[in-house]
Amino acid sequence: MALTEVSSNKSFGGFQKVFEHTSMQLGCKMKFGIYLPPKAEQQKCPILYWLSGLTCTEQNFVTKAGAQKLASEFGIIVVAPDTSPRGCAVPGEDENWDLGTGAGFYVDATQEPWSKHYRMYSYITAELPTVLQKSFPVLPDKQSIMGHSMGGHGALVCCLRNPGLYKSVSAFAPICNPVQCPWGHKAFQNYLGADQDAWKLYDATCLVLSYEGPPLDILVDQGSADSFLTAGQLLPENFTNACSKKQLPVVLRMQEGYDHSYFFIASFIEDHIKHHAKFLLA
Amino acid sequence: MALTEVSSNKSFGGFQKVFEHTSMQLGCKMKFGIYLPPKAEQQKCPILYWLSGLTCTEQNFVTKAGAQKLASEFGIIVVAPDTSPRGCAVPGEDENWDLGTGAGFYVDATQEPWSKHYRMYSYITAELPTVLQKSFPVLPDKQSIMGHSMGGHGALVCCLRNPGLYKSVSAFAPICNPVQCPWGHKAFQNYLGADQDAWKLYDATCLVLSYEGPPLDILVDQGSADSFLTAGQLLPENFTNACSKKQLPVVLRMQEGYDHSYFFIASFIEDHIKHHAKFLLA
Repeated sequence: MALTEVSSNKSFGGFQKVFEHTSMQLGCKMKFGIYLPPKAEQQKCPILYWLSGLTCTEQNFVTKAGAQKLASEFGIIVVAPDTSPRGCAVPGEDENWDLGTGAGFYVDATQEPWSKHYRMYSYITAELPTVLQKSFPVLPDKQSIMGHSMGGHGALVCCLRNPGLYKSVSAFAPICNPVQCPWGHKAFQNYLGADQDAWKLYDATCLVLSYEGPPLDILVDQGSADSFLTAGQLLPENFTNACSKKQLPVVLRMQEGYDHSYFFIASFIEDHIKHHAKFLLA
Repeated sequence: MALTEVSSNKSFGGFQKVFEHTSMQLGCKMKFGIYLPPKAEQQKCPILYWLSGLTCTEQNFVTKAGAQKLASEFGIIVVAPDTSPRGCAVPGEDENWDLGTGAGFYVDATQEPWSKHYRMYSYITAELPTVLQKSFPVLPDKQSIMGHSMGGHGALVCCLRNPGLYKSVSAFAPICNPVQCPWGHKAFQNYLGADQDAWKLYDATCLVLSYEGPPLDILVDQGSADSFLTAGQLLPENFTNACSKKQLPVVLRMQEGYDHSYFFIASFIEDHIKHHAKFLLA
């Protein structure tokens, strides 16, 4: 479980670091970004996870989102994991940008050839928090989660399947209803097999309908000029309709003219960190 | 002089765009980033140039610095040019990371084989402003300049050689005295030849001593953990000593523990934009 520091850069009074470790769940070396605010030098801090989208590594969020300023001000540790196992030589894992490497979809695969290594769900919800608790000054009962696109799906699923594990959840342009969209069909067919009941355990819209945990207050930002919205990959209304049925508070903000890029994320990341700070610092 | 839009992303209510055009000075196609704040939709705005460092393109600043938020709030157009001509097939231009491609050093080369294309000084101070005035809502008499490392050198030199052309200047970890450092020796020997008097026209520390223009109020941030500082490439004290001799106000802020990266830049970019806003919006 040893951590190797890959990089360390002072940032807004704290440190943006990248570490590498050997993941038991994934059976390979994994990197993650971690922002340690100045407050973490003196005391334990809450932790906020960021799950990235298709094709990303831990670098995209770390270099482009601009989250460090608010994380520094609020004293929140922000962790950005990678999006899939790497270099496991799983047959076919590098043939498609939306399946395999960079496209773990935050599920525990049950099908060959994926099931041995593609276990991002357990990595994110169980293994990584344990690793972090051993090595960093984190408050173990104060964690929240957010993400973008495939990572927005991941954040919603991790939260809805583990009532109480996360204090709050938010997402940028999440894949809200993967059982109904092309990306989800392709990934779930390969990782989870033909039985669509298994897919529903990784579908935020389906999970909301059976959610029985503590109250949630979900924030979703979606750009109106996002080409993946038009292409029917994201389906945010399906999710908000399901939330309405369950009387679960959700705010979906349609952001006029914004696309799917990190320029969109950077424009609203402060709102998301403030949203999580309300719950993490309460 | 036609501009081709390469990309456009909504960002903090405005647009971060990249354009390509054919530069007469450089004899090749050049890209630049331009942030247009919401205010630019209604009226003309001041313009703030960012000159990047060695190996950079227009992308580094655009994606990593986090300047858009403050530029949006202040209503300032921010322009990030590329750092050298590209693809001109100048012999040897791709053999060194600190000479040729990505390393134009903001000079007009006088020596073969560089003199035909490597004319970044005239591109930045003369050609690009004209291009921008024709195509964007800029206030032509309200421009300022800043930069990083090689681009900090460029910003100081462009300002000091053209009294009154820029309302203000600032720099992150600038190469302050290139006639005294290895990077400067290598670049100037190649671009400008053996006569060191020619070098002094592109050396901020030398130029300050003969500066006779309107008052300047110079802001310089320098990380104390910057390996290029230790290596004697930056020499900020030489510059501040020269400013003292000329009674030219300069603030050199040694930022404890910061390095040479964009994490350093992002941490203090707001201060720099506020510094320029004082003069651009006066």
